[in-house]
Amino acid sequence: MNEIEIHVRFGECDPAGIAFYPNFFAWYDHGLWTLFETIGLDRETAAARYGILGWPLVAAESRFLSPTKEGDRLTLRTEIVRWGRSSFDVQHRLRRGDTPIAEGLEKRVWAAAKPGGGLLPLPIPEEIRARLSPVPAG
Amino acid sequence: MNEIEIHVRFGECDPAGIAFYPNFFAWYDHGLWTLFETIGLDRETAAARYGILGWPLVAAESRFLSPTKEGDRLTLRTEIVRWGRSSFDVQHRLRRGDTPIAEGLEKRVWAAAKPGGGLLPLPIPEEIRARLSPVPAG
Amino acid sequence: MNEIEIHVRFGECDPAGIAFYPNFFAWYDHGLWTLFETIGLDRETAAARYGILGWPLVAAESRFLSPTKEGDRLTLRTEIVRWGRSSFDVQHRLRRGDTPIAEGLEKRVWAAAKPGGGLLPLPIPEEIRARLSPVPAG
Amino acid sequence: MNEIEIHVRFGECDPAGIAFYPNFFAWYDHGLWTLFETIGLDRETAAARYGILGWPLVAAESRFLSPTKEGDRLTLRTEIVRWGRSSFDVQHRLRRGDTPIAEGLEKRVWAAAKPGGGLLPLPIPEEIRARLSPVPAG
Repeated sequence: MNEIEIHVRFGECDPAGIAFYPNFFAWYDHGLWTLFETIGLDRETAAARYGILGWPLVAAESRFLSPTKEGDRLTLRTEIVRWGRSSFDVQHRLRRGDTPIAEGLEKRVWAAAKPGGGLLPLPIPEEIRARLSPVPAG
Repeated sequence: MNEIEIHVRFGECDPAGIAFYPNFFAWYDHGLWTLFETIGLDRETAAARYGILGWPLVAAESRFLSPTKEGDRLTLRTEIVRWGRSSFDVQHRLRRGDTPIAEGLEKRVWAAAKPGGGLLPLPIPEEIRARLSPVPAG
Repeated sequence: MNEIEIHVRFGECDPAGIAFYPNFFAWYDHGLWTLFETIGLDRETAAARYGILGWPLVAAESRFLSPTKEGDRLTLRTEIVRWGRSSFDVQHRLRRGDTPIAEGLEKRVWAAAKPGGGLLPLPIPEEIRARLSPVPAG
Repeated sequence: MNEIEIHVRFGECDPAGIAFYPNFFAWYDHGLWTLFETIGLDRETAAARYGILGWPLVAAESRFLSPTKEGDRLTLRTEIVRWGRSSFDVQHRLRRGDTPIAEGLEKRVWAAAKPGGGLLPLPIPEEIRARLSPVPAG
């Protein structure tokens, strides 16, 4: 679980005066990279140590609960809520103070580039799961 | 139903060498505006004739079926697949030639700005539904 | 003068693995909004108190001194370096630690919307200049 | 010299109701890729045949002559106006019908990745210059 602040930019808002919705997904993506950063996992490490190009998306969804606009300082909470063999689900909760702004879910796969094009799913290393999973109490 | 070409830009792709996924939603949004354009509905008309600020999102989702990269020329097919009283669903299908690339669904609301902030859903005008609905066969 | 941190996002980088250059200008724009925020000037205040739609660009330029990539934490220093009657110049300096990354200059105009379209330059209020200008010593 | 159409997207416009200025540079970049596409030069070819990662920016500038907004169909003319040994200048002219919208200039370098980080300028191949230079008359 990780939290970051999103300071909404003017250029992320549209002529309706509210944040343009694809930017919510850009924030979610950034939230996951920042979560991985807390365990020292960046793009170079992912390539060198695990031979993957990253964790591309299989699916993504979001509900938009309340509009937000430039200058707003939001809190984005990012958490991995499911581990599969080579896929995992990431939950994102965005709020402004106590006001929920949006909730998102990404379905991603731990993948290398397939020779000839496309993506090759690989097993998620146990150490990655272990370091990002909640420690059971007791 | 409307189709547009998306010529994927280098700047829409990420260090993994494939289109960054929030851009798919930006393309979907553009597909809907272009669909509305076919019946002469733009932002100024929406404001002046109907008193709305637009059709903000309640929810959005996408499945990503095959990666795409800069230079690809994609076809985006956009269709309104459900009309509610003040909400509607928009389906997007993206393909490269015969290869499906992605499928998305947006849930939107026909809305004015609420005095004091927030969004006020309004009934979708009958003429809008009529002009964008499939004509039943005779 | 104001400084903000830019945490470079994966989605702001391109297939060459470095930040896509238009994003530097998006950071510069955000730097200016954040500078204006320090004196309580936001879009609503600009519209309500001064009757302007903002400070659109007449020209912009940047030199790119060293590449930057996702995960980098940059410092952006933004300063208004010239006040004209209705125009002003904004200087931006971006660095990573002690390494200069980029330098930019924006030429902007304090402007209302012109009836019928286009932009109407207005005189910059004295209080704005005063609050954002260096205080002379002595 | 190459021309493309830019169909301005709603999401490329900001709360002032006009195109957000960093997007002009994104269009310029896309104009150059499309110009290179006309001679069969894409990212994979650039890497495989010439060993470069691309043509990163040394500097960029633009003048903004008239605002543009979503739905506008612009014409972008892109031309390489100077060839150096490993650098070149790209001029971009953007218009809506006969109305000039913006003019930009990019200074780029033909470059490989330098081992250990940074960029290594390489000589521009003669065949690239030849195929993109105006044919002298007579």
